[in-house]
Amino acid sequence: MDARAEILAAVDLEAALGEARINSELARTIWQLHMFADLIDEGAYVEAIIDRANPLVTPPRPELRRMLHPLGPVAIFTPSNFPLAYGVAGGDTASALAAGCPVLVKAHPSQPATSELCARILRAALATTPGGADVLQIVHGRAPETGRAVVEAAEIAAVGFTGSVAAGRALFNIAAARPEPMPFYGELGSLNPIFIGPAALAERSADIAAGLSQSVGLGAGQFCTKPGLVFVPASDAGRRFAQDLADKLDHLPNGVLLNQNISNLLGSHVDVTSHLAGVTRLTRRDNPKAPGFHVAPKLFLTDEATFLATSSVALREEHFGPVSVVVLCEPAHMPAIAGQLGGHLTGTIHASEDDREWAESMADTLALHVGRMIWNGYPTGVAVVPAMQHGGPYPSSTSSLHSAVGTTAIRRFLRPVAYQNYPDALLPDELQSDNPLGIERTIDGQRTRDGF
Amino acid sequence: MDARAEILAAVDLEAALGEARINSELARTIWQLHMFADLIDEGAYVEAIIDRANPLVTPPRPELRRMLHPLGPVAIFTPSNFPLAYGVAGGDTASALAAGCPVLVKAHPSQPATSELCARILRAALATTPGGADVLQIVHGRAPETGRAVVEAAEIAAVGFTGSVAAGRALFNIAAARPEPMPFYGELGSLNPIFIGPAALAERSADIAAGLSQSVGLGAGQFCTKPGLVFVPASDAGRRFAQDLADKLDHLPNGVLLNQNISNLLGSHVDVTSHLAGVTRLTRRDNPKAPGFHVAPKLFLTDEATFLATSSVALREEHFGPVSVVVLCEPAHMPAIAGQLGGHLTGTIHASEDDREWAESMADTLALHVGRMIWNGYPTGVAVVPAMQHGGPYPSSTSSLHSAVGTTAIRRFLRPVAYQNYPDALLPDELQSDNPLGIERTIDGQRTRDGF
Repeated sequence: MDARAEILAAVDLEAALGEARINSELARTIWQLHMFADLIDEGAYVEAIIDRANPLVTPPRPELRRMLHPLGPVAIFTPSNFPLAYGVAGGDTASALAAGCPVLVKAHPSQPATSELCARILRAALATTPGGADVLQIVHGRAPETGRAVVEAAEIAAVGFTGSVAAGRALFNIAAARPEPMPFYGELGSLNPIFIGPAALAERSADIAAGLSQSVGLGAGQFCTKPGLVFVPASDAGRRFAQDLADKLDHLPNGVLLNQNISNLLGSHVDVTSHLAGVTRLTRRDNPKAPGFHVAPKLFLTDEATFLATSSVALREEHFGPVSVVVLCEPAHMPAIAGQLGGHLTGTIHASEDDREWAESMADTLALHVGRMIWNGYPTGVAVVPAMQHGGPYPSSTSSLHSAVGTTAIRRFLRPVAYQNYPDALLPDELQSDNPLGIERTIDGQRTRDGF
Repeated sequence: MDARAEILAAVDLEAALGEARINSELARTIWQLHMFADLIDEGAYVEAIIDRANPLVTPPRPELRRMLHPLGPVAIFTPSNFPLAYGVAGGDTASALAAGCPVLVKAHPSQPATSELCARILRAALATTPGGADVLQIVHGRAPETGRAVVEAAEIAAVGFTGSVAAGRALFNIAAARPEPMPFYGELGSLNPIFIGPAALAERSADIAAGLSQSVGLGAGQFCTKPGLVFVPASDAGRRFAQDLADKLDHLPNGVLLNQNISNLLGSHVDVTSHLAGVTRLTRRDNPKAPGFHVAPKLFLTDEATFLATSSVALREEHFGPVSVVVLCEPAHMPAIAGQLGGHLTGTIHASEDDREWAESMADTLALHVGRMIWNGYPTGVAVVPAMQHGGPYPSSTSSLHSAVGTTAIRRFLRPVAYQNYPDALLPDELQSDNPLGIERTIDGQRTRDGF
């Protein structure tokens, strides 16, 4: 992955992200691969548990040794918004390979060259391992035909998918309808709602507007964690905040969308939202008429009654781009509204000391509906660390039990196997009595690196 | 659950299992409840991970604290073959309640009184907890209507099911088709294949036949781990073994099936198998003509070519009752055949020192298709210990990533939530800096019970 110049050129040609962003994404991609390499070297991820025999209980207990095994071949559907970090050599592939699973990547059609380049680099590295280059395969093609063929292939044992709710749900349905159903780990859409308390607004209105405008505009708003829905107190301060946020978004440079499809979808979504009764557009700039997928940030304003009464999905689904919606709302009503928004990757609370009671009530509800709870911050920026949870209740993920980011993402592609009364020589190294790999295990309830 | 006399009477009236079996199942049921109580007292099951902030890296890392939260209300479908251990107060309920999830039990229609009694006992205990009695609810009714209503209820967040492939798959499909899909943990059917090596057969033929006959006949063969398919070398020794096993089964007492439905299904399945070309029935006893669901053990014999050529599912699906099929088979072909059998809860190898090379090849294949590997033993008897894995590739389970038995079963009903830069006072106790619960956590990569 250190073939930096070639990668820069490919990504910039196909995704127009610019050198700084591509460099930082490449650094993250390399970090992720190293992180999983370290994880498998360390070895505890197999969750080895050994319970020795006990002939004295009724009924007598046999010896049992359990560990996690690779699930089988994994199909990965890459999105277009992270050509590297979620691409062919991205986190899904890294976690599946680390689990010991062969990987078939369905490359995103708008980035064939970047995908081929990453596959070539990975396959060259894999050629030096016992698995060989062929444990990574890549396929090109458009949905729905190629996607259906990949998900229906009986050899595939699990799917990792990042993309839209519509495409993801269609593939999820195919996976569930197979003669042998399999896990489908889809990361679909998320509004990443923000809730701002009255005291926080009084104290830090301009700071929050500045932070939010950056978070909405980052990467032309094409991040799964872009804040798409902002609840502020229905007060003069709330209205001033919304206008301030709009002004700040109007001062951001135009962004560039990733492809024609995203540009078309965002255009029609914005059009629908613009025409909703009770919804006002606060930002003033239109998209430039220049060729290419240039986009100006947009902010809409509405009120609680309109938001609750609007049956159109326009306010309940992600505008994939630099677009957000501010809802003027009675703070005491925000917890109940948070409970009606469906599942999201993240939920953010901005609160000051005087908001404490409200914030506790907010947090209690929000924790039931999101995977990551953010305090006085912004949801974009997903730290690749063990404690990260990237995945939430549906539709943000099709499996809220798992994370797409961080070391625990490997757990998606592993299943437990127990060995009963097995001879030591036939056991996997991880389970042999003398612990030849020196990994941490749980033996008769005690965690230890010792053998016995 | 210590209201022993009342429970004994209810179970014996509805399931006719006899005092010894009911007492042992009751002991297991009580043990399971204590095991999960100990697990939540110990606290590490929340898998707390804390990664402290690092402002020096690019981009700066926020503080993240992750733990597992309850998934939400769980529906449990109880089977009839373990009125207590898999019943209303059984392992599924215990693990879901331990996870912090309310439970709605769909009681098995053949055991309404046992189910009500267990619900009453559990609700009385729950009334003394902060959750209150109402976190456990019970509903009666027949499939498919009641089952569909339970699985379609939007409030339900996960399902635990134990039963047939047909009923389980139908409910799985309903769960997958919901507007918000949810995890469906179904334990369906399993053949628990046994593979016997030539040297083991030469050394221990009579012992293996004795052990197998007990395992097939136990509980009238109505265990999910009953061995339903036995591969023995195609030799005179193999044929003698099959006849010996049949003779031993003919000497077992008749069993009693659990209900009319099981009796009808087994009757037609045995009828189909009996009429397959190339399949011989070795046991001589027919079912007694007395009233009630009495059943005589049955053993069928076939050969490898017939087994592979028979398109009828009769030889590939569980005979739910004291029935097994012996396949005379070239030992060298057994690993490839193991790869074509689909997923099973368990796989058993009987081997002696001289079978070593064959056994290694067998084990390599079998580990891809089963959840529990048994060496020179029998699959019935499922130890309730942390290292147990009860669940395998489809159709034995709809989610091979999880176990229905043992402490890890709690993981089915938990999902991760991460807290980013949260104030200590608003964090769950499990994640607060000073570790008020004293649980084991992973802080910056180190496992510790210390606070900071």
